[in-house]
Amino acid sequence: MEGFGVHTSMWTMNWDRAGAERAVAAAVKYEVDFIEIPMLNPPAVDTAHTKALLEKHRLRAVCSLGLPESAWASVRPDAAIEHLTVAIDKTADLGGEALSGVIYGGIGERTGVPPTQAEYDNITRVMAAAARHAKSRGIELGVEAVNRYENHLINTGWQAVELIERVGAENVFVHLDTYHMNIEEKGAANGILAARDHLKYIHLSESDRGTPGYGTCDWDEIFATLAAIGFKGGLAMESFINMPPELAYGLSVWRPVAKDEAEVMGNGLPFLRNKAGQYGLI
Amino acid sequence: MEGFGVHTSMWTMNWDRAGAERAVAAAVKYEVDFIEIPMLNPPAVDTAHTKALLEKHRLRAVCSLGLPESAWASVRPDAAIEHLTVAIDKTADLGGEALSGVIYGGIGERTGVPPTQAEYDNITRVMAAAARHAKSRGIELGVEAVNRYENHLINTGWQAVELIERVGAENVFVHLDTYHMNIEEKGAANGILAARDHLKYIHLSESDRGTPGYGTCDWDEIFATLAAIGFKGGLAMESFINMPPELAYGLSVWRPVAKDEAEVMGNGLPFLRNKAGQYGLI
Amino acid sequence: MEGFGVHTSMWTMNWDRAGAERAVAAAVKYEVDFIEIPMLNPPAVDTAHTKALLEKHRLRAVCSLGLPESAWASVRPDAAIEHLTVAIDKTADLGGEALSGVIYGGIGERTGVPPTQAEYDNITRVMAAAARHAKSRGIELGVEAVNRYENHLINTGWQAVELIERVGAENVFVHLDTYHMNIEEKGAANGILAARDHLKYIHLSESDRGTPGYGTCDWDEIFATLAAIGFKGGLAMESFINMPPELAYGLSVWRPVAKDEAEVMGNGLPFLRNKAGQYGLI
Amino acid sequence: MEGFGVHTSMWTMNWDRAGAERAVAAAVKYEVDFIEIPMLNPPAVDTAHTKALLEKHRLRAVCSLGLPESAWASVRPDAAIEHLTVAIDKTADLGGEALSGVIYGGIGERTGVPPTQAEYDNITRVMAAAARHAKSRGIELGVEAVNRYENHLINTGWQAVELIERVGAENVFVHLDTYHMNIEEKGAANGILAARDHLKYIHLSESDRGTPGYGTCDWDEIFATLAAIGFKGGLAMESFINMPPELAYGLSVWRPVAKDEAEVMGNGLPFLRNKAGQYGLI
Repeated sequence: MEGFGVHTSMWTMNWDRAGAERAVAAAVKYEVDFIEIPMLNPPAVDTAHTKALLEKHRLRAVCSLGLPESAWASVRPDAAIEHLTVAIDKTADLGGEALSGVIYGGIGERTGVPPTQAEYDNITRVMAAAARHAKSRGIELGVEAVNRYENHLINTGWQAVELIERVGAENVFVHLDTYHMNIEEKGAANGILAARDHLKYIHLSESDRGTPGYGTCDWDEIFATLAAIGFKGGLAMESFINMPPELAYGLSVWRPVAKDEAEVMGNGLPFLRNKAGQYGLI
Repeated sequence: MEGFGVHTSMWTMNWDRAGAERAVAAAVKYEVDFIEIPMLNPPAVDTAHTKALLEKHRLRAVCSLGLPESAWASVRPDAAIEHLTVAIDKTADLGGEALSGVIYGGIGERTGVPPTQAEYDNITRVMAAAARHAKSRGIELGVEAVNRYENHLINTGWQAVELIERVGAENVFVHLDTYHMNIEEKGAANGILAARDHLKYIHLSESDRGTPGYGTCDWDEIFATLAAIGFKGGLAMESFINMPPELAYGLSVWRPVAKDEAEVMGNGLPFLRNKAGQYGLI
Repeated sequence: MEGFGVHTSMWTMNWDRAGAERAVAAAVKYEVDFIEIPMLNPPAVDTAHTKALLEKHRLRAVCSLGLPESAWASVRPDAAIEHLTVAIDKTADLGGEALSGVIYGGIGERTGVPPTQAEYDNITRVMAAAARHAKSRGIELGVEAVNRYENHLINTGWQAVELIERVGAENVFVHLDTYHMNIEEKGAANGILAARDHLKYIHLSESDRGTPGYGTCDWDEIFATLAAIGFKGGLAMESFINMPPELAYGLSVWRPVAKDEAEVMGNGLPFLRNKAGQYGLI
Repeated sequence: MEGFGVHTSMWTMNWDRAGAERAVAAAVKYEVDFIEIPMLNPPAVDTAHTKALLEKHRLRAVCSLGLPESAWASVRPDAAIEHLTVAIDKTADLGGEALSGVIYGGIGERTGVPPTQAEYDNITRVMAAAARHAKSRGIELGVEAVNRYENHLINTGWQAVELIERVGAENVFVHLDTYHMNIEEKGAANGILAARDHLKYIHLSESDRGTPGYGTCDWDEIFATLAAIGFKGGLAMESFINMPPELAYGLSVWRPVAKDEAEVMGNGLPFLRNKAGQYGLI
């Protein structure tokens, strides 16, 4: 998880053979260092096929997911452990470096009341079990803080740090996202500073999830703070143009937030690369 | 709807006699021009009591609401018209100037798919009927654009304008909110510019709904654009510290986003007033 | 003075035949609507040559200057009128639309004390005389507010407006510059708002005079406010890479502030065009 | 040089007994940790008087200056060494911790051409000699990068670092200023990052030198980057309301840039303290 990568949502949200081939070809074209593979249905991933594709193109990978409601860690910890175990195995089998995202719950999970200690106890137990299995497979686990509407448990950098410190495993890291920080942190730097000791991965996503550089994210503040803390992790551009039905409710993007893929990849990607370069991050 | 006001959520979300008295006393203390009264349960409002309070303190009022699921305009237009008719009557009876907010749907209403023409047709019909009744009572109606998670129908300034132009009534205006614009617009000015011909009301709410001035909203851009378009409507500070159960799921604020009321009123309010004054808006 | 143009300082600061040909060829390549021609030595301009070049390429032009010390309007008003008369004639002869810049004084003029009424009286008289002559030649005159170090007389938008209202001529307008506003205005929008009734020309120049988009100027605020006031004038990109000895002391750029011309024209120009387009200005 | 201080220019630019007493009384009232004393005329400072005042109020002090033209280090290195020797002695005698500012040249020094190696060689020699003497007196020396108009030699953080590394003395540090960085750096964070290994002092000064928080400086980026690099030095608020004739030309503030002292101290100071506190810097 180093360098500059891209979430493959730009090209597919269905990681079957066709989707994987299309996404890898695009990632190679844009010369990224790694891709993020959405693992919406872990058992269905053809790991041998993906592994061969990645090796052929010397591309690294991070897998990501949100738990299905049947396996929300806060209320169904055993199902969550089972789901994550499969996902960790699939990540290892396809040659991935980490499994990250809302691995502690659902995208869209909200009870209508603030988090309870019982919920945190459950997700702590799940994370600890998953971390042990991940360690045995050489995989790291990332905890992504997401906005209040997508989950009620971990909305800020310091909440992710608290969870990680409760879990106490070395292979669990904080995963931030500029889109979510724009809603939850007093400023993106606050989230980065709060998470600095555990931060290894960050989604670079614009304030409306459209083309990076066209919205309200303060990219200078973001990259400057990353540079200042000596950030060495992965920078992954994320934008949502194609929305799979499974995620539509959770992500709630109801209109095109970018003109087209060409705008995102032709303007947004170079913008982020230039800024990251200006601050010595890539 | 002119001048500088405050959403009474700071002091009560239950507009009974005690809540009304507490909120009005506080509003008087902070010398605002008007208050926004949340009308969560229109029939329960004691309009004579509120009217007397407002007159005694020479305070103007705007009422606001989101529709209950049983009266969502997109799917139950007749129930929505009935609900709005009562709310308009209550607004007029207590001496209010306008009824605004998510008056076209629910706070938290989402189908999981993009808006359909049938939904827009229904809400247009509801708005037209409500506008006619509001006109007969001397009330204006405001359409508030809210973020993608709180409603899937009207997320941006231009979507509010489109609805209003379809309705075609003179007493319907656009209501913007800086918190929602921070998520939905490419920059707050874009929303203000898109809505300029119809904009009469704006919620001044920080990016995390906490203390204004402590988050990521670009207040100079916001006030400069308002000044530049010659904005003459109401500026209403909004922050959420007390969350009623009815709104908790929709608003999804799971942790304190401000230290306390003193921080919001002692730092946030003067900050907004100073900036609004710098740009000649009050 | 409409559309998107560029200050030819990018290609020449010496408006001889070779410089003019190089600059016009470059401007045509980048498809700008007009060029700004620095008239450092008015009598030396070969107006027939420039006029032919402009007509051939259907390019419009604005001329600009700062007065030489021998003709500072504040202390040598008659010499200033004489200098401006020649410059206005040359502008008209080459087919230009306006003469703008620090036409009321020197770039680097400072007395060490705040402006005096006598200085303002002198420059008002000079501007009035120049405006009369300019009118007879069909030329408009622009008053550029520059930062405190480049001149002590007109540093802000409202000071330019005050001067223009004292002059009282219809063909004199305010010329703002984002680089100078970054130092002098409480925010660029303040300068634009103060000058709105007289603003017809703006230099788009980054905070360090380097590549637009790489510095601290708040371009969203700038373009949003221009859009909001209904700005119809000329947008001229300005960056200083080549510094003529005559201007070096006044402009004081002692190191390369952009990597090279390719960075300014390849990244800065499209950045400004995209943003201007986003706000409907071009 | 730790904690939060204030440049005494707010209360006096003449460090005689009356000025010193007025400034110290004000600093005590605003509960700052240290004051910055402008040493415009080192021999004239009554060090015993100042020392007693500082001790009485347990206030720490940093002295600052720009060299007079008769002692510009670039061209008159021996005179510069002599001037700095006196200033260092005075700083030590009054109980100050450091001598900082444009100690390598004049405020307003510009040759009209870029810096030469000979100039840098001279100032390096002066700094080395001054550092030796300062070390013998237990004083640190700060090199302040100022904007292109105030000096042509050291405009950016990296230029200050280069000078310091050439000097090679442990008791010389970088002194940044947000006002100057707003003109010279691609963003304030760039200057802070470039200087991080040597940065011990920073002037918090608004983009127009008026009330902090009212201009264009990006204070979140500034404080976040300081927090991220683990900054432990002094934070000194600076605003210019009273301008001594000696500095007027160099500083070039020709109009009131703040309403009055009450605005600067009543709004600007708490604003900076709040923000510095938010980022854990004080």
